[in-house]
Amino acid sequence: MQFNNKDIVEKISEEIISRLRTSGFSQKGFISEEDELKKIAKMIDHTILKADATYDEVKQICREAIEYGFASVCVNPGFVPMVVEMLKGSGIPTCCVVGFPLGATTSKVKAFEAKEAIENGAREIDMVINISALKSKDYNRVRSDIQEVVIVARNKAKVKVIIETCLLTDEEKIRACEIAKEAGADFVKTSTGFSTGGATVEDIKLMRKVVGPDMGVKASGGISDYASAVALLEAGACTLGDSDTCRIGTSKSIKIVESK
Amino acid sequence: MQFNNKDIVEKISEEIISRLRTSGFSQKGFISEEDELKKIAKMIDHTILKADATYDEVKQICREAIEYGFASVCVNPGFVPMVVEMLKGSGIPTCCVVGFPLGATTSKVKAFEAKEAIENGAREIDMVINISALKSKDYNRVRSDIQEVVIVARNKAKVKVIIETCLLTDEEKIRACEIAKEAGADFVKTSTGFSTGGATVEDIKLMRKVVGPDMGVKASGGISDYASAVALLEAGACTLGDSDTCRIGTSKSIKIVESK
Repeated sequence: MQFNNKDIVEKISEEIISRLRTSGFSQKGFISEEDELKKIAKMIDHTILKADATYDEVKQICREAIEYGFASVCVNPGFVPMVVEMLKGSGIPTCCVVGFPLGATTSKVKAFEAKEAIENGAREIDMVINISALKSKDYNRVRSDIQEVVIVARNKAKVKVIIETCLLTDEEKIRACEIAKEAGADFVKTSTGFSTGGATVEDIKLMRKVVGPDMGVKASGGISDYASAVALLEAGACTLGDSDTCRIGTSKSIKIVESK
Repeated sequence: MQFNNKDIVEKISEEIISRLRTSGFSQKGFISEEDELKKIAKMIDHTILKADATYDEVKQICREAIEYGFASVCVNPGFVPMVVEMLKGSGIPTCCVVGFPLGATTSKVKAFEAKEAIENGAREIDMVINISALKSKDYNRVRSDIQEVVIVARNKAKVKVIIETCLLTDEEKIRACEIAKEAGADFVKTSTGFSTGGATVEDIKLMRKVVGPDMGVKASGGISDYASAVALLEAGACTLGDSDTCRIGTSKSIKIVESK
């Protein structure tokens, strides 16, 4: 085989880059596998939302979040004081769901619930939209419902808006994302995990397209291994480690960072 | 065959009663089948709680409740004003779920949600207990959680306490019923219909045994035909038509009264 200098430089460069690559995702930077997993952990909301979660189970989730450096611990409102106490000094915020999981309570209740959670120390609020209003094309109500929570959370907590993709047509998904953005929310989020389906690559791509590069997109519901998590982050055009624009919500967080 | 007078009276009485019986349930009174169905309808909370219920669907449920004479229309908080308006003048109360379906929000939120629903016209409140607290043996919290709603509802609305039987051991079911009774609730209720199971004859028998004859017992979750409804009412030692001590909660109400 004959190479000129340019060819040789190209071949050697390709070979080195190929050896540095540890996965499809890490091609975005020459980072070690350990760094990559840490950066993915930093994008995961470590979540326990089942109705029968015990106090001990929730405490365990908090210890795991600290050990692995997850983005947040996501719980129901009744657990916020306990989680805030457990996470004290760790720098990990407490995330609280609101109007969860049906989104079918009133805006006043959602705002009250968010306010109390923030007073109790929550720094992230994952609220469910009024799906009935969206389905009934009552868009003003969908918007004001989100706005009431955004107002309560202003300068105190991020607001993620769960649109429950599995119940929506593509047109409704687009409308919901547009309204969430207009209402001043920080993130749109796919799913509660309590309905008929969870996050899909297609939905994440659609949601990113609608909200643009600067708003957050959170994939949640049924995410249980590393490959799915990475596929969803890629679909969301995520920069590895940027938890302001991308999140994964799951109760299988440890399995994900250990299943690579 | 030889009979004495006493035997003859007994045999004839038995035969007549047997011929008058139209079902296992109607043996409690000599009533027509139409009356029986009306009395069963009067014990059914006609229910629509799915997250994506449209305004039109909820209105239809209200029209059906008036036509069939159901006990109440049971909806999420966001629909209370609409349902109260639709049912105006019918004498049928609006029933509103609270802390639904996980029961995992705070007591303050549950009380706020109940208060607003009552101000909006609800006359029955179906609240979910704090299942996590029960599982963690924090009985004082389970009790005060119910009490805060009972206080708000006093003299204004009945309170039904959903214990979510499918997630509980028998010991936990007993404890939950005892606490609900102590806390001053009007009913114990089996299920949200959003968890892993619904009402069973065994659970209804157990709940009736714990709360005694005067407190209400409501069977809900997965009840979809006449035979199941009657079996559950019988298990609850119900007097036909007595909606103060017995209820069925279902979205299949019409199917039930028409499936006999």
